Amino acid sequence: MNAFILSIGDELVLGQTVDTNSAWLSQQLATVGCGIAGHGTVPDNQKMIEDAIRSAAGRCDVLLISGGIGPTEDDLSRQALAVVLGAELEMNEIWLARLHEFWSKRNAVMPEMNKIQAMIPRGAMMLENTAGTAAGIRAILTLCDVDLKTDSATGIASCDIFVMPGVPKEMKIMFTREVLPFIKERSGGAVILQRTLHTFGIGESAVAEKLGQLMNRGRNPSVGTTVANQIVSLRINARFDSRAEASERLESTTADCEAALGDLIFGRDEQTLPHVIAKLLGQGENKLTVCTAESCTGGLLAKMLTDLPGSSAYFTQGWVTYSNLAKYDRLGVPTDVINVYGAVSEPVVEAMARNARRLAKTTYALSISGIAGPDGGSATKPVGTVCIALAKPDPNDRAGTVVYKRTFVLTGDREMIRDRAAKMALTMLRFELLSKPLPF
Amino acid sequence: MNAFILSIGDELVLGQTVDTNSAWLSQQLATVGCGIAGHGTVPDNQKMIEDAIRSAAGRCDVLLISGGIGPTEDDLSRQALAVVLGAELEMNEIWLARLHEFWSKRNAVMPEMNKIQAMIPRGAMMLENTAGTAAGIRAILTLCDVDLKTDSATGIASCDIFVMPGVPKEMKIMFTREVLPFIKERSGGAVILQRTLHTFGIGESAVAEKLGQLMNRGRNPSVGTTVANQIVSLRINARFDSRAEASERLESTTADCEAALGDLIFGRDEQTLPHVIAKLLGQGENKLTVCTAESCTGGLLAKMLTDLPGSSAYFTQGWVTYSNLAKYDRLGVPTDVINVYGAVSEPVVEAMARNARRLAKTTYALSISGIAGPDGGSATKPVGTVCIALAKPDPNDRAGTVVYKRTFVLTGDREMIRDRAAKMALTMLRFELLSKPLPF
Repeated sequence: MNAFILSIGDELVLGQTVDTNSAWLSQQLATVGCGIAGHGTVPDNQKMIEDAIRSAAGRCDVLLISGGIGPTEDDLSRQALAVVLGAELEMNEIWLARLHEFWSKRNAVMPEMNKIQAMIPRGAMMLENTAGTAAGIRAILTLCDVDLKTDSATGIASCDIFVMPGVPKEMKIMFTREVLPFIKERSGGAVILQRTLHTFGIGESAVAEKLGQLMNRGRNPSVGTTVANQIVSLRINARFDSRAEASERLESTTADCEAALGDLIFGRDEQTLPHVIAKLLGQGENKLTVCTAESCTGGLLAKMLTDLPGSSAYFTQGWVTYSNLAKYDRLGVPTDVINVYGAVSEPVVEAMARNARRLAKTTYALSISGIAGPDGGSATKPVGTVCIALAKPDPNDRAGTVVYKRTFVLTGDREMIRDRAAKMALTMLRFELLSKPLPF
Repeated sequence: MNAFILSIGDELVLGQTVDTNSAWLSQQLATVGCGIAGHGTVPDNQKMIEDAIRSAAGRCDVLLISGGIGPTEDDLSRQALAVVLGAELEMNEIWLARLHEFWSKRNAVMPEMNKIQAMIPRGAMMLENTAGTAAGIRAILTLCDVDLKTDSATGIASCDIFVMPGVPKEMKIMFTREVLPFIKERSGGAVILQRTLHTFGIGESAVAEKLGQLMNRGRNPSVGTTVANQIVSLRINARFDSRAEASERLESTTADCEAALGDLIFGRDEQTLPHVIAKLLGQGENKLTVCTAESCTGGLLAKMLTDLPGSSAYFTQGWVTYSNLAKYDRLGVPTDVINVYGAVSEPVVEAMARNARRLAKTTYALSISGIAGPDGGSATKPVGTVCIALAKPDPNDRAGTVVYKRTFVLTGDREMIRDRAAKMALTMLRFELLSKPLPF
């Protein structure tokens, strides 16, 4: 079973809005084993919508259309569908009543133009919209023309067409309630299960090298890599006839990937570095806490540590000591240390972390000082040079502090360097909490 | 002149990657007055790519293809194009030499599989890739079949085809260098000039209400609104035959929008709130500085204030006092004030801002305390309640401090509430620097 996804809208075709509906729909379809023949986007032009419906319907079993069913004159999907079906638009009294009710609840009278939203082609069905005024449409297009569907042995085939709103929230609710159950029942074929594993700290090609033949094309489950926000993720897709087999093989490939990458993998699916840190800090018998002292990242590390609700359990405070004077005033970094070694140096981040830990009375302190660029680099300290320190209890003297520090040269623009630096600090803390050395 | 944009890749069709190339290309095409017939996306399947090329070529003057020209077996765009053109793939010796050079510079030998990247259909031209190993392809497809291009009066038409890499960075460089100049020369028709104006603080419908008839459909220049990251932006598109007229009318509509919205507009095009704050702090005779004291935003406000290079000129330091104890230890917020009014209260943010300003010796101090959620709300202080204070010099006593404070109830999830809170604090500072009252 194959689906085609058609998005309608000038704002999409003009590039003023990035189409995220198609990717979301594709992901949903994959989970029930429905293949995807392609995506298409056309402007708010009735003739072009008609052509696109005809062309797409010949290439798929299910055509999902989003957009173009609002009340205004540039909403033309229902009119185009009616022409392709060769059916008149008819008033659907049930939906008309719902529309009147919608406005009367708001003590208002329905604008005349909204009546069009209750009209659907004769013979089509209405799809309920629980989040807006645009009802969806379900229709069946019978293709008698062999040219339209050349794969069809009989020369007669049909395509199920669903028209949904373009507003992502309304579309998602309608798809989940009204469309997905139909596709699930019909597809009955392969099941595709997906999992994502996330790594941080080594490049995409280094990850690929470690995975080796796991990434071979044609392998099932397949393993691919993607990069987003400095995180290299592995995407595992298992496509099998039965859910049981897909699930078993997904687990087995996940184990193979984990064996190849070890602790470089920090989480899976929706897990972020802050999730993992929160879990590791919370799982010990003692209440482990952390504070931050930042220069170049300007608060980003503290922001990440407070991304999750409940972060006050382990994060109490942080300093953004952006100027040299602030490093001295707030954290007692000796001026001569800054003068001798420079603000971006291991002695400076060591003093920042050590004193932050003492002041905040936390288990750990993370500090960062670096050159985020684009200016400020030199031959010995190029843009991207970032020093990070982790202060922790001295294992030989619980009242004392030991500081682990490292210097990295991170790549990218200012935003990427700052993001990488904060994530590297979280990663240093993560390996400390795992009682393992940093693997890079 | 009309273009069609075709993206190739399983990861796009499966929804694992959101296609951003098509929107970017559309925006670029619009600036030179080239219309867009539509977008299409197909999987890494040679037959489907061939069909898509044939179908799209019949609907446009220029077909832009991105993706499918890497070195691996799932890269099939060049093979598909060769079949459609009815031409053999030939080795391009110039690009082959470039590939060998690329690897020898890295003291490596080119893998055999990469040779395919130097092959293009006979009669086609190579497009230089300055950022990667995949050369682009330019070809002309002559359509003798009237079915393919029904609008053509003669029944014979041609389509210029450009094949570019799918990697956004490589695609953008190649498009700008090799493709855009061609389209610019050929289009010769209408010029579309665009401008974006950004507002913060009132909702999209309130912005639309103030704009009134400026947003009428069919108006030229057109005015539309979009929302991203809590910023409501106006997009103005002026489409006229001459650049001079487009420019003049764009300015005139910009002035109309500015008249309707006044200081609610904080910037245009690439300008962000941090840009505007940097400019306002820097333009006075005195060196104006700011520090931050944050609770629920956890460092996000300081991070925004250090987004730009050179921010050390006005930002020196910030505190993240997430726990009540940190508010007392670091900023001397009296424990009884916290106990009586709660950590999210105007007296607390007033003390935070006043004391931060005193300690940091800055012109201004911004403080934030709020309930970002999803938990922690109550009947009197629901999730989204955020108190913000701005400490500034007392106009009657330069040694003194006065504090302006406000309480907002912001909407959205935890991430949105934190983002809105930080942007609201910047907005309060912006209106202070404009010597105007906050308009909401």
